[in-house]
Amino acid sequence: MSSITQFGTMQMLVESLLDGFVTAKDMLKAGNTGIGTGAGVDGELILLDGKAYQVNGKGQVQEVADDFPVVFGDVHQAAYQVLGQYENQSFEDLSSDILQAVGSQNLFLSVKITGDFQHVQTRSAQKSEKPYPGLGEIAKKQMIFNQDNVSGTMVGYYTPSLYEGVGVPGFHMHFLSDQKDFGGHVLDSQLKNVEVSIQILDALNVKLPVNNRDYKKADLSHLDHLSQVIHAAES
Amino acid sequence: MSSITQFGTMQMLVESLLDGFVTAKDMLKAGNTGIGTGAGVDGELILLDGKAYQVNGKGQVQEVADDFPVVFGDVHQAAYQVLGQYENQSFEDLSSDILQAVGSQNLFLSVKITGDFQHVQTRSAQKSEKPYPGLGEIAKKQMIFNQDNVSGTMVGYYTPSLYEGVGVPGFHMHFLSDQKDFGGHVLDSQLKNVEVSIQILDALNVKLPVNNRDYKKADLSHLDHLSQVIHAAES
Repeated sequence: MSSITQFGTMQMLVESLLDGFVTAKDMLKAGNTGIGTGAGVDGELILLDGKAYQVNGKGQVQEVADDFPVVFGDVHQAAYQVLGQYENQSFEDLSSDILQAVGSQNLFLSVKITGDFQHVQTRSAQKSEKPYPGLGEIAKKQMIFNQDNVSGTMVGYYTPSLYEGVGVPGFHMHFLSDQKDFGGHVLDSQLKNVEVSIQILDALNVKLPVNNRDYKKADLSHLDHLSQVIHAAES
Repeated sequence: MSSITQFGTMQMLVESLLDGFVTAKDMLKAGNTGIGTGAGVDGELILLDGKAYQVNGKGQVQEVADDFPVVFGDVHQAAYQVLGQYENQSFEDLSSDILQAVGSQNLFLSVKITGDFQHVQTRSAQKSEKPYPGLGEIAKKQMIFNQDNVSGTMVGYYTPSLYEGVGVPGFHMHFLSDQKDFGGHVLDSQLKNVEVSIQILDALNVKLPVNNRDYKKADLSHLDHLSQVIHAAES
């Protein structure tokens, strides 16, 4: 069974620890599929078929260079199983069906949805420079994009509640259009005619920036506000 | 750099999910050094030099069979660096020195202490059978052991605050005497003349019991009481 390799934590984003500490190339060594964000929350990343694409703060899509610096990302080697075809359904309804089919809310999953979407709403952020603002500030400066009748791939992960602050509890999905002209972090979506695949993952491998001075020195002992900031920023 | 492989979570112990899902042999495939507990919280495990020892609920020490079932454990491949010799100091004082030397409270560490101890207080629990009680109940039934002037090895991990419920925040140490006649989960200790080694680990790889029915079905969404139960049970 395969595992998720996660670079960094959501807590790092909340606490403005936004230095890149892994490259897109090194991230792709840990798997061919995933999501993430660049150093300074430089757009939204989606990793598909061994390639890493960035939706930048203006909504433009490009494949990133090998040395593109990443501050947070989840990646795994794809081995999905088809759950079924779904028509005219919200992602919210689908996500309940997925957890029902898996029979658990306590496992890490990856979900991949390909086909035609009635509507997809995404967001992406402009890169911030040092001294970095908090994720709350970054979220305020993000751009929101909407597209109707778009074909593409939505991919991401389901994380159990326990890992709040390490990751994002619940489903965390990114989108990339087949035309590679639209995508980002999914805020809302309505499926038209799609194939839904899932992959149960048996481990989460969290890699930390052990050589980053700011990370090492930060006071990360206060956890009470994490939940609030993550929910505000990631939904 | 090496990583910790963790089988199971502290939340599982708190929520009475105590079925074994990995064997001692498979745990040792992920490294030669570590700590853990058997299915049903069957004593305290300490893994040293590629061998897994159990201190059972009566305080007896034995090397476990390859197929010994484990419900929770941390393991890594030892590559320690000597921090120094320490004399006549409490572990509590030493732990502050260790974090100071590392310069961070945000990294996973392993600590290994070998030599002469003035006093070591440990505890170990009797194996519980299904239906399993909670960790709070198990903690009440545990035995406490004390030994003065004992030579041995204390080994364990430091976990940053964020991972509460996944692991045990702070230092979590187990002890085994050189005579292999005393050990367990360390509650208190006074060092006499020891060598302290540390190893910074760059990743935590949490492996979950994806095929265990009780784990999959459990309601693990309530996190508020985790901190309280873990602190009561692990200190």
